[in-house]
Amino acid sequence: MKFLIIGGDAAGMSAASRARRNQPQAEVTVLEKTADVSYSACGMPYNIADPARPIDDLVVRQASVFREKQGIRLLTGHEARHIDPAGKTVSGLRGPDQPFRFSYDKLLIATGASPLLPDKPGFDLPGVMVLKSLADGGKIKAFLASRPVKRVVVIGMGYIALEMAEALCARGLQVDMIKPRPEILPWLPGEMAQDVRAEIARHGVNLYPGNEIERIEAVGSGLAVCGPDVTLNGEMVLVAIGIRPNSRIAAEAGLALSVQESIGVDKMLKTSDEHVFAAGDCADAVHVVSGRRVWIPLALRANRAGWAAADNVFGDQQTLQGVAGTAVFKVFDLAVARTGLNAAEARQAGFDPVDIMIESRSRAHAHPGSSSIKVSMVGDRKSGRLLGAQMVGREGVAHRINAPAVALHAQMTVSQFAQSDLAYAPPFGPTWDPLLIAAHQLVKKV
Amino acid sequence: MKFLIIGGDAAGMSAASRARRNQPQAEVTVLEKTADVSYSACGMPYNIADPARPIDDLVVRQASVFREKQGIRLLTGHEARHIDPAGKTVSGLRGPDQPFRFSYDKLLIATGASPLLPDKPGFDLPGVMVLKSLADGGKIKAFLASRPVKRVVVIGMGYIALEMAEALCARGLQVDMIKPRPEILPWLPGEMAQDVRAEIARHGVNLYPGNEIERIEAVGSGLAVCGPDVTLNGEMVLVAIGIRPNSRIAAEAGLALSVQESIGVDKMLKTSDEHVFAAGDCADAVHVVSGRRVWIPLALRANRAGWAAADNVFGDQQTLQGVAGTAVFKVFDLAVARTGLNAAEARQAGFDPVDIMIESRSRAHAHPGSSSIKVSMVGDRKSGRLLGAQMVGREGVAHRINAPAVALHAQMTVSQFAQSDLAYAPPFGPTWDPLLIAAHQLVKKV
Repeated sequence: MKFLIIGGDAAGMSAASRARRNQPQAEVTVLEKTADVSYSACGMPYNIADPARPIDDLVVRQASVFREKQGIRLLTGHEARHIDPAGKTVSGLRGPDQPFRFSYDKLLIATGASPLLPDKPGFDLPGVMVLKSLADGGKIKAFLASRPVKRVVVIGMGYIALEMAEALCARGLQVDMIKPRPEILPWLPGEMAQDVRAEIARHGVNLYPGNEIERIEAVGSGLAVCGPDVTLNGEMVLVAIGIRPNSRIAAEAGLALSVQESIGVDKMLKTSDEHVFAAGDCADAVHVVSGRRVWIPLALRANRAGWAAADNVFGDQQTLQGVAGTAVFKVFDLAVARTGLNAAEARQAGFDPVDIMIESRSRAHAHPGSSSIKVSMVGDRKSGRLLGAQMVGREGVAHRINAPAVALHAQMTVSQFAQSDLAYAPPFGPTWDPLLIAAHQLVKKV
Repeated sequence: MKFLIIGGDAAGMSAASRARRNQPQAEVTVLEKTADVSYSACGMPYNIADPARPIDDLVVRQASVFREKQGIRLLTGHEARHIDPAGKTVSGLRGPDQPFRFSYDKLLIATGASPLLPDKPGFDLPGVMVLKSLADGGKIKAFLASRPVKRVVVIGMGYIALEMAEALCARGLQVDMIKPRPEILPWLPGEMAQDVRAEIARHGVNLYPGNEIERIEAVGSGLAVCGPDVTLNGEMVLVAIGIRPNSRIAAEAGLALSVQESIGVDKMLKTSDEHVFAAGDCADAVHVVSGRRVWIPLALRANRAGWAAADNVFGDQQTLQGVAGTAVFKVFDLAVARTGLNAAEARQAGFDPVDIMIESRSRAHAHPGSSSIKVSMVGDRKSGRLLGAQMVGREGVAHRINAPAVALHAQMTVSQFAQSDLAYAPPFGPTWDPLLIAAHQLVKKV
């Protein structure tokens, strides 16, 4: 059995390792266009924050380990260009111009996603950076090490942009952030987004939401991000306005695409071609709350889908439940977390949502060191179901979000969730956990 | 409607407040034998740790607030002695010798629990302390403030004993701990209990597990805890060997008792007498995993049961799902958490348990500041159900335990739980959360 994998990042290498471990007789080949495999992409902002740490600290497993210890035929510098589903081959280029062609019995597309770049002047200037691959991270570190950078303009205010703002501040740089939409983190209730905004501002970052960007210009030895109302100067510009799935190779092979042009897969990770699977940031998933197809590219799903695809390639029947869209990120001293749907998403998904927001404390009454935790929770008036939760706070947010996440998988009602026996000790929360306070408020309204 | 409540702590005052809020026309009377109501009992070790904080910092709401703002007839210094279920009256003593008698339409028994004291010589000596009521906490603080205490002997190694050991160390005292059973925290897997033991020892506390205690003796100006093999000297002794439900008044009234002599209640908190409810540390509960009656006296359940009882007294049909036994406590820099059953408890409850233990990290690969997290997880071979989990670690333990707790309420299988979409960001955990790593290991064995 020839198992061919396009893409050697989280999903691809998870699949390759799993296949080799469980199917020692299989021939497992991975085509990776870059030189890097198996690194902690999410760790890049934290690595960039520290000039003393080499970017390679983020490599979890060297290519040689996959090759020599695991027996995976891992071909770096191999860019797949075309899939021929009828002939069951993949062709492409090794190096700049050496063509290759491989045949497969089963194929896994794990091509990931690419950062979005606006089609506007100046986004190709030197010093304009994106952050997706390890090479991107290395490039940013090298740039900061070799130039007298004092100010960085970050375009975008999503979680990568915010994590990078923190990282750049940690290096003593002045950071300005700009984006066209007026709201920061529009999926958060306004008051909670306002807390995030205050936290960023408190660390000296200037925020310019609601400002269009027309072009980037080279100005002296630096760059200027120019819009109709604002011009921001810096020696480096980071563009972090989102990503898109690398699905063109799949579309050109006639495979069905799904939401936001991600590759459509069933619960067994199979595409519209029965010999072709897709996993990771390039593929869609079912949302456990709405039951609808969504594209929520996150690391855990990529790893999990890689595993499941590898199992299914060899005849297993591993079905994935789907995603709840559970995520957390750190913004300076705040953590922001979410799971499931917010009210607007719930309405769009056909629910009759009602949401509440409560403020509580991270530790018990009278326990020193306590700080604010805000919880927003969404329920469905028709069914009473819990639909989602969002949280912001200085401590106790990251893992607390997992309780409602599990409740979403179990399709619990708000009332059932409100009865959960959660842990209590004064250093870790009030007797009524903020989640339970929120659930009790919400029960009254659903 | 006359609603009478015996006991003005968590369950009793929750019930009284709830009743007054929802039933303004009801006559709500609370009989409390001490002078204190509504305080954070669990916060006492942390208050005792700091000589500068008055013990009254722990009072959440003063008696006057309940009386004047909420209109509750709150009678402190009233000790209920007898219930006459036929005549629907409660009698007792106000002060040392003034008898009282109150009639009721509905009665709530919320008498709580009392610390166990061995029936051995010297446990009544001055300087031998227990910690349950606010008065107990005040007595310990006053003793420490007024005497030259340098060494404290703690009898017992449960969570109160451990929290107090930390508190006493924080005050610069030498602490020795002794108990008859050889294991520390016997409900934890051995290796995890060993980590707790090492953490305690690292802070200079001497541990003497496996040592019988025969008596306490007055020796000069101090005390000696004496056993056949060990004699430990100190100026104060804290006895923290467990608690028992205050159920005598219920038993004498002919109400049915349950496990460990707790008062038996149904899911609506009703005792064997239809006009009498019980809630809090004096009452039993149904365990959501085993379906069996258990006595797990914890603060959240007391508050929740108080609320539900108050609702049901006035004709609501509030049923409580039961408890998962979710708990967390801090031991110096470690947190220890549990939910559901361990393997031994699962076997006793009729399951065919299999358990695993894994060690993971509190932060992502290469993220600075990471520490060890150990997770033990228990599943049922027959049904595949998740039965429980235990965790030990320096960070990320307290709230992480709530995810499996919710899964227990939802009666999830290990395999379903393993598919949970949990939050990931490098500062808060690895891509595969330690809980998921444990669940994947356990899936292979159930």
